[in-house]
Amino acid sequence: MNSILLSASAISGSLAQITSPEQITHINKVLGLQVGDSLKIGQIGGKLGSAIIDKITSESVQMREVQLNTEPPDKLNLTVILALPRPKVLRRLIMDMTALGVSDIVLINSYRTQKSYWQSPMLARLNEFVIEGLQQGVDTILPNITLEKRFKPFVEDKLPRLLAEQNTQGVVAHPYSPLSLSKYLQQADTMTAWPKVVCIGSEGGWIDYEVELLAEQGCQSVNIGARILRTEAAVNVIIGHWLLHQ
Amino acid sequence: MNSILLSASAISGSLAQITSPEQITHINKVLGLQVGDSLKIGQIGGKLGSAIIDKITSESVQMREVQLNTEPPDKLNLTVILALPRPKVLRRLIMDMTALGVSDIVLINSYRTQKSYWQSPMLARLNEFVIEGLQQGVDTILPNITLEKRFKPFVEDKLPRLLAEQNTQGVVAHPYSPLSLSKYLQQADTMTAWPKVVCIGSEGGWIDYEVELLAEQGCQSVNIGARILRTEAAVNVIIGHWLLHQ
Repeated sequence: MNSILLSASAISGSLAQITSPEQITHINKVLGLQVGDSLKIGQIGGKLGSAIIDKITSESVQMREVQLNTEPPDKLNLTVILALPRPKVLRRLIMDMTALGVSDIVLINSYRTQKSYWQSPMLARLNEFVIEGLQQGVDTILPNITLEKRFKPFVEDKLPRLLAEQNTQGVVAHPYSPLSLSKYLQQADTMTAWPKVVCIGSEGGWIDYEVELLAEQGCQSVNIGARILRTEAAVNVIIGHWLLHQ
Repeated sequence: MNSILLSASAISGSLAQITSPEQITHINKVLGLQVGDSLKIGQIGGKLGSAIIDKITSESVQMREVQLNTEPPDKLNLTVILALPRPKVLRRLIMDMTALGVSDIVLINSYRTQKSYWQSPMLARLNEFVIEGLQQGVDTILPNITLEKRFKPFVEDKLPRLLAEQNTQGVVAHPYSPLSLSKYLQQADTMTAWPKVVCIGSEGGWIDYEVELLAEQGCQSVNIGARILRTEAAVNVIIGHWLLHQ
Protein backbone atom coordinates (compact mmCIF):
# COMPACT_ATOMS: atom_id res chain seq x y z
CA MET A 1 0.00 0.00 0.00
CA ASN A 2 1.62 3.19 -1.19
CA SER A 3 -1.40 5.15 -0.03
CA ILE A 4 -4.33 4.28 2.22
CA LEU A 5 -7.70 4.72 0.55
CA LEU A 6 -10.72 5.86 2.53
CA SER A 7 -14.35 6.13 1.58
CA ALA A 8 -15.97 9.57 1.78
CA SER A 9 -17.91 8.45 4.86
CA ALA A 10 -14.66 7.89 6.79
CA ILE A 11 -13.64 11.53 6.29
CA SER A 12 -15.25 14.46 8.07
CA GLY A 13 -13.62 17.83 7.43
CA SER A 14 -10.05 17.68 8.74
CA LEU A 15 -10.70 14.42 10.61
CA ALA A 16 -10.73 10.85 9.31
CA GLN A 17 -10.63 7.32 10.61
CA ILE A 18 -9.40 3.98 9.37
CA THR A 19 -11.24 0.86 10.50
CA SER A 20 -10.11 -1.74 7.95
CA PRO A 21 -8.07 -4.44 9.75
CA GLU A 22 -5.71 -4.78 6.71
CA GLN A 23 -5.01 -1.06 6.65
CA ILE A 24 -4.49 -0.90 10.44
CA THR A 25 -2.07 -3.85 10.30
CA HIS A 26 -0.23 -2.21 7.39
CA ILE A 27 0.17 1.06 9.33
CA ASN A 28 1.43 -0.79 12.41
CA LYS A 29 3.51 -3.61 10.99
CA VAL A 30 4.74 -2.56 7.56
CA LEU A 31 4.95 1.22 7.86
CA GLY A 32 5.64 1.15 11.60
CA LEU A 33 3.96 4.53 12.05
CA GLN A 34 3.10 6.13 15.37
CA VAL A 35 0.98 8.96 16.71
CA GLY A 36 2.17 12.24 15.19
CA ASP A 37 3.45 10.64 11.97
CA SER A 38 2.16 11.65 8.56
CA LEU A 39 0.35 9.14 6.38
CA LYS A 40 -0.34 9.22 2.63
CA ILE A 41 -4.06 8.83 2.05
CA GLY A 42 -6.62 9.19 -0.69
CA GLN A 43 -10.40 9.37 -0.96
CA ILE A 44 -12.00 6.72 -3.13
CA GLY A 45 -13.16 8.53 -6.24
CA GLY A 46 -11.55 11.74 -5.01
CA LYS A 47 -8.17 13.31 -4.35
CA LEU A 48 -4.86 12.20 -2.85
CA GLY A 49 -3.20 13.79 0.15
CA SER A 50 -2.03 13.20 3.70
CA ALA A 51 -3.11 13.19 7.32
CA ILE A 52 -1.48 13.15 10.75
CA ILE A 53 -2.07 10.11 12.96
CA ASP A 54 -3.83 11.17 16.13
CA LYS A 55 -4.62 7.89 17.87
CA ILE A 56 -4.03 4.19 17.20
CA THR A 57 -6.10 1.43 18.78
CA SER A 58 -6.57 -2.18 17.73
CA GLU A 59 -9.86 -1.23 16.08
CA SER A 60 -9.10 2.09 14.44
CA VAL A 61 -6.59 4.74 13.47
CA GLN A 62 -7.85 8.28 14.07
CA MET A 63 -6.38 11.07 11.95
CA ARG A 64 -6.36 14.86 11.99
CA GLU A 65 -5.12 17.56 9.59
CA VAL A 66 -6.56 15.70 6.61
CA GLN A 67 -5.43 17.37 3.39
CA LEU A 68 -6.67 16.13 0.04
CA ASN A 69 -5.30 18.45 -2.63
CA THR A 70 -3.71 16.30 -5.32
CA GLU A 71 -5.50 14.94 -8.36
CA PRO A 72 -4.93 11.21 -8.97
CA PRO A 73 -2.79 10.34 -12.01
CA ASP A 74 -4.49 10.16 -15.40
CA LYS A 75 -6.01 6.85 -16.42
CA LEU A 76 -4.68 5.14 -19.55
CA ASN A 77 -7.92 5.53 -21.53
CA LEU A 78 -7.64 1.85 -22.35
CA THR A 79 -10.19 -0.94 -22.27
CA VAL A 80 -8.68 -4.37 -21.62
CA ILE A 81 -10.80 -7.33 -22.68
CA LEU A 82 -9.31 -10.26 -20.77
CA ALA A 83 -10.31 -13.91 -21.05
CA LEU A 84 -11.39 -14.83 -17.50
CA PRO A 85 -8.27 -16.43 -15.99
CA ARG A 86 -7.83 -19.08 -13.32
CA PRO A 87 -9.12 -17.77 -9.97
CA LYS A 88 -5.62 -18.14 -8.53
CA VAL A 89 -4.21 -15.41 -10.75
CA LEU A 90 -7.32 -13.20 -10.89
CA ARG A 91 -6.36 -11.12 -7.85
CA ARG A 92 -2.94 -10.12 -9.13
CA LEU A 93 -4.26 -9.46 -12.64
CA ILE A 94 -6.98 -7.11 -11.39
CA MET A 95 -4.50 -5.44 -9.02
CA ASP A 96 -1.93 -4.94 -11.78
CA MET A 97 -4.37 -3.66 -14.40
CA THR A 98 -5.76 -1.24 -11.80
CA ALA A 99 -2.31 -0.06 -10.70
CA LEU A 100 -1.31 0.44 -14.35
CA GLY A 101 -4.32 2.74 -14.77
CA VAL A 102 -6.54 0.69 -17.08
CA SER A 103 -9.88 2.53 -17.17
CA ASP A 104 -12.15 -0.34 -18.26
CA ILE A 105 -11.76 -4.07 -17.71
CA VAL A 106 -13.99 -6.63 -19.42
CA LEU A 107 -13.64 -10.19 -18.12
CA ILE A 108 -14.95 -12.38 -20.89
CA ASN A 109 -15.60 -16.04 -21.48
CA SER A 110 -13.33 -17.82 -23.95
CA TYR A 111 -12.96 -21.35 -25.28
CA ARG A 112 -10.07 -21.98 -22.89
CA THR A 113 -11.84 -20.46 -19.86
CA GLN A 114 -13.04 -23.35 -17.74
CA LYS A 115 -16.71 -23.15 -16.72
CA SER A 116 -15.75 -23.50 -13.06
CA TYR A 117 -13.89 -20.16 -13.17
CA TRP A 118 -17.26 -18.38 -13.39
CA GLN A 119 -18.32 -20.03 -10.11
CA SER A 120 -15.24 -18.88 -8.21
CA PRO A 121 -15.82 -16.92 -4.99
CA MET A 122 -12.94 -14.69 -6.15
CA LEU A 123 -15.36 -13.00 -8.56
CA ALA A 124 -17.24 -11.57 -5.57
CA ARG A 125 -14.00 -9.96 -4.37
CA LEU A 126 -13.14 -7.87 -7.44
CA ASN A 127 -13.78 -4.60 -5.60
CA GLU A 128 -11.30 -5.61 -2.91
CA PHE A 129 -8.62 -6.36 -5.55
CA VAL A 130 -9.32 -3.02 -7.22
CA ILE A 131 -8.79 -1.18 -3.93
CA GLU A 132 -5.50 -3.07 -3.47
CA GLY A 133 -4.45 -2.02 -6.96
CA LEU A 134 -5.38 1.62 -6.35
CA GLN A 135 -3.44 1.64 -3.07
CA GLN A 136 -0.46 0.10 -4.90
CA GLY A 137 -0.58 2.49 -7.84
CA VAL A 138 -1.46 5.61 -5.77
CA ASP A 139 -4.73 6.23 -7.57
CA THR A 140 -8.29 6.81 -6.32
CA ILE A 141 -10.52 6.20 -9.33
CA LEU A 142 -12.01 2.71 -9.67
CA PRO A 143 -11.83 1.13 -13.11
CA ASN A 144 -15.12 -0.13 -14.53
CA ILE A 145 -15.24 -3.91 -14.51
CA THR A 146 -17.84 -5.84 -16.47
CA LEU A 147 -18.33 -9.59 -16.72
CA GLU A 148 -19.29 -11.05 -20.09
CA LYS A 149 -20.18 -14.71 -19.82
CA ARG A 150 -20.91 -15.07 -23.53
CA PHE A 151 -18.12 -14.37 -25.99
CA LYS A 152 -19.98 -14.17 -29.31
CA PRO A 153 -22.81 -11.81 -28.30
CA PHE A 154 -20.31 -9.47 -26.67
CA VAL A 155 -17.96 -9.42 -29.66
CA GLU A 156 -20.71 -9.12 -32.25
CA ASP A 157 -23.03 -6.68 -30.48
CA LYS A 158 -21.22 -4.70 -27.79
CA LEU A 159 -17.65 -4.53 -29.11
CA PRO A 160 -18.53 -2.71 -32.36
CA ARG A 161 -20.38 -0.05 -30.37
CA LEU A 162 -17.45 0.29 -27.96
CA LEU A 163 -14.98 0.73 -30.84
CA ALA A 164 -17.27 3.20 -32.61
CA GLU A 165 -17.88 5.28 -29.47
CA GLN A 166 -14.16 5.54 -28.84
CA ASN A 167 -13.43 5.99 -32.55
CA THR A 168 -10.66 3.43 -32.33
CA GLN A 169 -9.37 0.13 -33.62
CA GLY A 170 -8.63 -2.69 -31.20
CA VAL A 171 -5.73 -5.11 -30.99
CA VAL A 172 -5.79 -8.76 -29.95
CA ALA A 173 -2.68 -10.44 -28.56
CA HIS A 174 -2.04 -13.65 -30.49
CA PRO A 175 1.32 -15.42 -30.68
CA TYR A 176 0.66 -16.64 -34.23
CA SER A 177 -0.01 -13.24 -35.76
CA PRO A 178 2.64 -12.23 -38.33
CA LEU A 179 2.50 -8.58 -37.17
CA SER A 180 4.34 -7.59 -34.00
CA LEU A 181 2.80 -5.23 -31.47
CA SER A 182 5.81 -2.90 -31.73
CA LYS A 183 5.54 -2.65 -35.54
CA TYR A 184 1.83 -2.02 -35.20
CA LEU A 185 2.35 0.72 -32.60
CA GLN A 186 5.05 2.37 -34.72
CA GLN A 187 2.53 2.60 -37.55
CA ALA A 188 -0.14 3.86 -35.15
CA ASP A 189 2.30 6.53 -33.98
CA THR A 190 2.71 8.02 -37.41
CA MET A 191 -0.70 7.34 -38.93
CA THR A 192 -3.41 7.45 -36.34
CA ALA A 193 -3.84 7.28 -32.59
CA TRP A 194 -2.94 4.21 -30.55
CA PRO A 195 -5.74 1.68 -30.18
CA LYS A 196 -7.84 2.08 -27.05
CA VAL A 197 -8.99 -1.54 -26.82
CA VAL A 198 -6.68 -4.50 -26.15
CA CYS A 199 -7.86 -8.13 -26.05
CA ILE A 200 -5.65 -10.55 -24.10
CA GLY A 201 -6.27 -14.29 -23.81
CA SER A 202 -5.48 -16.25 -20.70
CA GLU A 203 -3.44 -19.46 -20.40
CA GLY A 204 -3.37 -21.03 -23.84
CA GLY A 205 -4.52 -17.81 -25.51
CA TRP A 206 -7.44 -17.36 -27.89
CA ILE A 207 -8.46 -20.03 -30.37
CA ASP A 208 -8.46 -19.16 -34.10
CA TYR A 209 -12.24 -18.77 -34.18
CA GLU A 210 -12.07 -16.14 -31.44
CA VAL A 211 -9.25 -14.23 -33.15
CA GLU A 212 -11.23 -14.28 -36.42
CA LEU A 213 -14.41 -13.03 -34.75
CA LEU A 214 -12.45 -10.22 -33.08
CA ALA A 215 -10.77 -9.38 -36.41
CA GLU A 216 -14.16 -9.09 -38.13
CA GLN A 217 -15.05 -6.34 -35.68
CA GLY A 218 -11.83 -4.40 -36.26
CA CYS A 219 -9.33 -5.92 -33.84
CA GLN A 220 -5.91 -6.40 -35.42
CA SER A 221 -4.03 -9.45 -34.11
CA VAL A 222 -0.46 -8.78 -32.98
CA ASN A 223 2.30 -10.92 -31.49
CA ILE A 224 4.76 -10.08 -28.74
CA GLY A 225 7.50 -12.42 -29.94
CA ALA A 226 8.29 -16.13 -29.86
CA ARG A 227 8.40 -16.35 -26.10
CA ILE A 228 5.22 -17.41 -24.31
CA LEU A 229 4.65 -15.47 -21.11
CA ARG A 230 2.48 -16.08 -18.07
CA THR A 231 -0.80 -14.15 -18.41
CA GLU A 232 0.29 -11.71 -15.69
CA ALA A 233 3.62 -11.09 -17.40
CA ALA A 234 1.97 -10.65 -20.81
CA VAL A 235 -0.57 -8.19 -19.38
CA ASN A 236 2.19 -6.08 -17.85
CA VAL A 237 4.40 -6.26 -20.95
CA ILE A 238 1.54 -5.22 -23.24
CA ILE A 239 -0.13 -2.56 -21.08
CA GLY A 240 3.34 -1.30 -20.11
CA HIS A 241 3.60 0.09 -23.63
CA TRP A 242 0.52 2.24 -23.09
CA LEU A 243 1.77 3.29 -19.64
CA LEU A 244 5.07 4.59 -21.00
CA HIS A 245 3.40 6.14 -24.05
CA GLN A 246 1.36 8.53 -21.90
CA MET B 1 5.13 -25.62 -19.22
CA ASN B 2 4.98 -24.86 -22.91
CA SER B 3 7.84 -27.28 -23.51
CA ILE B 4 9.41 -29.97 -21.34
CA LEU B 5 13.14 -29.48 -20.79
CA LEU B 6 15.45 -32.48 -20.50
CA SER B 7 19.10 -32.70 -19.60
CA ALA B 8 21.47 -34.19 -22.18
CA SER B 9 21.81 -37.32 -20.03
CA ALA B 10 18.08 -38.05 -20.37
CA ILE B 11 18.37 -38.19 -24.17
CA SER B 12 20.03 -41.03 -26.07
CA GLY B 13 19.76 -40.81 -29.85
CA SER B 14 16.09 -40.99 -30.77
CA LEU B 15 15.06 -42.07 -27.27
CA ALA B 16 14.53 -40.01 -24.14
CA GLN B 17 12.97 -40.32 -20.73
CA ILE B 18 11.35 -37.97 -18.25
CA THR B 19 11.69 -38.75 -14.55
CA SER B 20 10.83 -35.42 -12.92
CA PRO B 21 7.62 -35.84 -10.90
CA GLU B 22 6.50 -32.27 -11.83
CA GLN B 23 6.96 -32.95 -15.53
CA ILE B 24 5.20 -36.34 -15.33
CA THR B 25 2.27 -34.77 -13.48
CA HIS B 26 2.11 -31.99 -16.05
CA ILE B 27 2.00 -34.47 -18.94
CA ASN B 28 -0.73 -36.52 -17.24
CA LYS B 29 -2.89 -33.89 -15.56
CA VAL B 30 -2.49 -30.63 -17.46
CA LEU B 31 -1.69 -31.79 -20.99
CA GLY B 32 -3.65 -35.04 -20.63
CA LEU B 33 -1.35 -36.78 -23.10
CA GLN B 34 -1.28 -40.51 -23.80
CA VAL B 35 0.96 -43.05 -25.48
CA GLY B 36 1.37 -42.10 -29.15
CA ASP B 37 0.89 -38.37 -28.58
CA SER B 38 3.54 -35.84 -29.56
CA LEU B 39 5.19 -33.71 -26.88
CA LYS B 40 7.12 -30.42 -27.24
CA ILE B 41 10.53 -30.86 -25.67
CA GLY B 42 13.91 -29.16 -25.48
CA GLN B 43 17.40 -30.04 -24.36
CA ILE B 44 18.82 -27.81 -21.65
CA GLY B 45 21.47 -25.71 -23.35
CA GLY B 46 20.54 -27.21 -26.72
CA LYS B 47 17.74 -27.22 -29.27
CA LEU B 48 13.95 -27.41 -29.20
CA GLY B 49 11.86 -30.11 -30.83
CA SER B 50 9.41 -32.91 -30.19
CA ALA B 51 9.11 -36.58 -29.28
CA ILE B 52 6.43 -39.27 -29.32
CA ILE B 53 5.32 -40.72 -26.01
CA ASP B 54 6.08 -44.44 -25.91
CA LYS B 55 5.23 -45.43 -22.36
CA ILE B 56 3.89 -43.73 -19.25
CA THR B 57 4.36 -45.10 -15.73
CA SER B 58 4.11 -43.34 -12.37
CA GLU B 59 7.91 -43.01 -12.32
CA SER B 60 8.76 -42.11 -15.89
CA VAL B 61 7.63 -41.15 -19.36
CA GLN B 62 9.55 -42.94 -22.11
CA MET B 63 9.80 -41.25 -25.49
CA ARG B 64 10.83 -42.22 -29.02
CA GLU B 65 11.35 -40.32 -32.29
CA VAL B 66 13.16 -37.52 -30.47
CA GLN B 67 13.75 -34.62 -32.88
CA LEU B 68 15.68 -31.57 -31.76
CA ASN B 69 16.06 -29.29 -34.77
CA THR B 70 14.95 -25.82 -33.74
CA GLU B 71 17.25 -23.17 -32.28
CA PRO B 72 15.88 -21.51 -29.14
CA PRO B 73 14.79 -17.86 -29.50
CA ASP B 74 17.44 -15.16 -29.20
CA LYS B 75 18.21 -13.84 -25.76
CA LEU B 76 17.63 -10.15 -25.08
CA ASN B 77 21.32 -9.35 -24.58
CA LEU B 78 20.32 -7.60 -21.41
CA THR B 79 21.76 -7.70 -17.90
CA VAL B 80 19.20 -7.01 -15.18
CA ILE B 81 20.61 -5.91 -11.83
CA LEU B 82 17.78 -6.52 -9.39
CA ALA B 83 17.72 -5.66 -5.69
CA LEU B 84 17.18 -9.01 -3.96
CA PRO B 85 13.40 -9.12 -3.38
CA ARG B 86 11.31 -10.81 -0.71
CA PRO B 87 11.66 -14.60 -0.98
CA LYS B 88 7.93 -14.83 -1.66
CA VAL B 89 8.23 -13.05 -5.01
CA LEU B 90 11.68 -14.37 -5.98
CA ARG B 91 10.35 -17.43 -7.82
CA ARG B 92 8.04 -15.51 -10.12
CA LEU B 93 10.64 -12.80 -10.75
CA ILE B 94 13.31 -15.32 -11.80
CA MET B 95 10.73 -17.21 -13.89
CA ASP B 96 9.56 -14.06 -15.63
CA MET B 97 13.02 -12.65 -16.33
CA THR B 98 14.05 -16.04 -17.72
CA ALA B 99 10.92 -16.37 -19.87
CA LEU B 100 11.46 -12.84 -21.20
CA GLY B 101 14.94 -13.86 -22.34
CA VAL B 102 17.16 -11.86 -19.98
CA SER B 103 20.69 -13.19 -20.51
CA ASP B 104 22.27 -12.13 -17.20
CA ILE B 105 20.66 -11.60 -13.81
CA VAL B 106 22.51 -10.01 -10.89
CA LEU B 107 20.72 -10.23 -7.55
CA ILE B 108 22.24 -7.49 -5.44
CA ASN B 109 21.98 -6.23 -1.91
CA SER B 110 20.33 -2.84 -1.40
CA TYR B 111 19.45 -0.64 1.53
CA ARG B 112 15.84 -1.86 1.43
CA THR B 113 16.78 -5.55 1.07
CA GLN B 114 16.27 -7.14 4.46
CA LYS B 115 19.23 -9.16 5.71
CA SER B 116 17.01 -12.20 6.22
CA TYR B 117 16.35 -12.40 2.45
CA TRP B 118 19.93 -13.61 1.97
CA GLN B 119 19.25 -16.54 4.33
CA SER B 120 16.16 -17.70 2.45
CA PRO B 121 16.11 -21.33 1.29
CA MET B 122 14.60 -19.99 -1.95
CA LEU B 123 18.08 -18.87 -3.00
CA ALA B 124 19.11 -22.54 -3.26
CA ARG B 125 16.27 -23.11 -5.72
CA LEU B 126 17.18 -20.55 -8.37
CA ASN B 127 18.03 -23.23 -10.91
CA GLU B 128 14.58 -24.77 -10.48
CA PHE B 129 12.92 -21.38 -11.09
CA VAL B 130 15.09 -20.86 -14.16
CA ILE B 131 13.97 -24.20 -15.61
CA GLU B 132 10.35 -23.22 -14.94
CA GLY B 133 10.95 -19.95 -16.77
CA LEU B 134 12.59 -21.68 -19.73
CA GLN B 135 9.71 -24.17 -19.96
CA GLN B 136 7.26 -21.26 -19.85
CA GLY B 137 9.11 -19.16 -22.43
CA VAL B 138 10.04 -22.10 -24.73
CA ASP B 139 13.77 -21.52 -24.39
CA THR B 140 16.66 -23.84 -23.48
CA ILE B 141 19.54 -21.54 -22.56
CA LEU B 142 19.97 -20.78 -18.86
CA PRO B 143 20.59 -17.15 -17.95
CA ASN B 144 23.67 -16.46 -15.83
CA ILE B 145 22.67 -15.59 -12.28
CA THR B 146 25.12 -14.04 -9.86
CA LEU B 147 24.57 -13.00 -6.25
CA GLU B 148 26.21 -9.81 -5.03
CA LYS B 149 25.85 -9.41 -1.30
CA ARG B 150 27.70 -6.09 -1.21
CA PHE B 151 26.30 -3.19 -3.18
CA LYS B 152 29.17 -0.69 -3.18
CA PRO B 153 32.02 -3.02 -4.24
CA PHE B 154 29.90 -4.39 -7.06
CA VAL B 155 28.86 -0.98 -8.34
CA GLU B 156 32.30 0.57 -8.01
CA ASP B 157 34.45 -2.33 -9.21
CA LYS B 158 32.46 -4.80 -11.30
CA LEU B 159 29.79 -2.60 -12.90
CA PRO B 160 32.24 -0.28 -14.72
CA ARG B 161 33.96 -3.33 -16.26
CA LEU B 162 30.60 -4.80 -17.27
CA LEU B 163 29.53 -1.54 -18.94
CA ALA B 164 32.89 -1.17 -20.66
CA GLU B 165 32.93 -4.76 -21.94
CA GLN B 166 29.47 -4.35 -23.40
CA ASN B 167 30.25 -0.81 -24.58
CA THR B 168 26.96 0.40 -23.17
CA GLN B 169 25.33 2.78 -20.75
CA GLY B 170 23.01 1.47 -18.06
CA VAL B 171 19.66 2.70 -16.82
CA VAL B 172 18.30 2.61 -13.29
CA ALA B 173 14.57 2.64 -12.65
CA HIS B 174 13.76 5.39 -10.16
CA PRO B 175 10.30 6.95 -9.72
CA TYR B 176 11.78 10.35 -8.85
CA SER B 177 13.90 10.72 -11.97
CA PRO B 178 12.75 13.63 -14.18
CA LEU B 179 13.51 11.61 -17.35
CA SER B 180 11.02 8.97 -18.48
CA LEU B 181 12.18 5.59 -19.79
CA SER B 182 10.26 6.14 -23.03
CA LYS B 183 11.90 9.53 -23.67
CA TYR B 184 15.28 7.98 -22.93
CA LEU B 185 14.67 5.05 -25.28
CA GLN B 186 13.47 7.39 -28.04
CA GLN B 187 16.79 9.24 -27.77
CA ALA B 188 18.69 5.94 -27.67
CA ASP B 189 16.87 4.91 -30.84
CA THR B 190 18.12 7.87 -32.81
CA MET B 191 21.52 8.45 -31.22
CA THR B 192 23.07 5.23 -29.98
CA ALA B 193 22.08 1.68 -29.17
CA TRP B 194 19.68 0.77 -26.38
CA PRO B 195 21.32 0.25 -22.99
CA LYS B 196 22.22 -3.35 -22.17
CA VAL B 197 22.12 -2.99 -18.39
CA VAL B 198 18.98 -2.22 -16.39
CA CYS B 199 18.94 -1.75 -12.60
CA ILE B 200 15.61 -2.32 -10.87
CA GLY B 201 15.00 -1.84 -7.15
CA SER B 202 12.62 -3.99 -5.18
CA GLU B 203 9.78 -2.90 -2.88
CA GLY B 204 10.48 0.71 -1.92
CA GLY B 205 13.02 1.11 -4.73
CA TRP B 206 16.59 2.38 -4.45
CA ILE B 207 17.60 5.05 -1.96
CA ASP B 208 19.16 8.28 -3.28
CA TYR B 209 22.68 7.18 -2.34
CA GLU B 210 22.30 4.03 -4.45
CA VAL B 211 20.95 5.94 -7.45
CA GLU B 212 23.85 8.42 -7.16
CA LEU B 213 26.45 5.66 -6.97
CA LEU B 214 24.93 3.97 -10.02
CA ALA B 215 24.83 7.33 -11.86
CA GLU B 216 28.55 7.87 -11.17
CA GLN B 217 29.26 4.66 -13.06
CA GLY B 218 27.15 5.65 -16.05
CA CYS B 219 23.63 4.49 -15.20
CA GLN B 220 21.00 7.05 -16.18
CA SER B 221 18.01 7.14 -13.85
CA VAL B 222 14.62 6.95 -15.56
CA ASN B 223 11.03 6.89 -14.33
CA ILE B 224 8.10 4.83 -15.59
CA GLY B 225 5.41 7.32 -14.55
CA ALA B 226 3.61 8.38 -11.40
CA ARG B 227 2.12 4.98 -10.71
CA ILE B 228 4.03 2.70 -8.35
CA LEU B 229 3.96 -0.92 -9.50
CA ARG B 230 4.66 -4.21 -7.75
CA THR B 231 8.25 -5.31 -8.44
CA GLU B 232 7.02 -8.12 -10.71
CA ALA B 233 4.83 -5.76 -12.68
CA ALA B 234 7.63 -3.17 -12.98
CA VAL B 235 10.10 -5.82 -14.18
CA ASN B 236 7.68 -6.99 -16.89
CA VAL B 237 6.76 -3.43 -17.93
CA ILE B 238 10.41 -2.38 -18.20
CA ILE B 239 11.91 -5.51 -19.77
CA GLY B 240 8.86 -5.76 -22.03
CA HIS B 241 10.24 -2.76 -23.90
CA TRP B 242 13.41 -4.67 -24.73
CA LEU B 243 11.37 -7.75 -25.66
CA LEU B 244 9.29 -5.86 -28.21
CA HIS B 245 12.30 -3.91 -29.48
CA GLN B 246 14.02 -7.09 -30.67
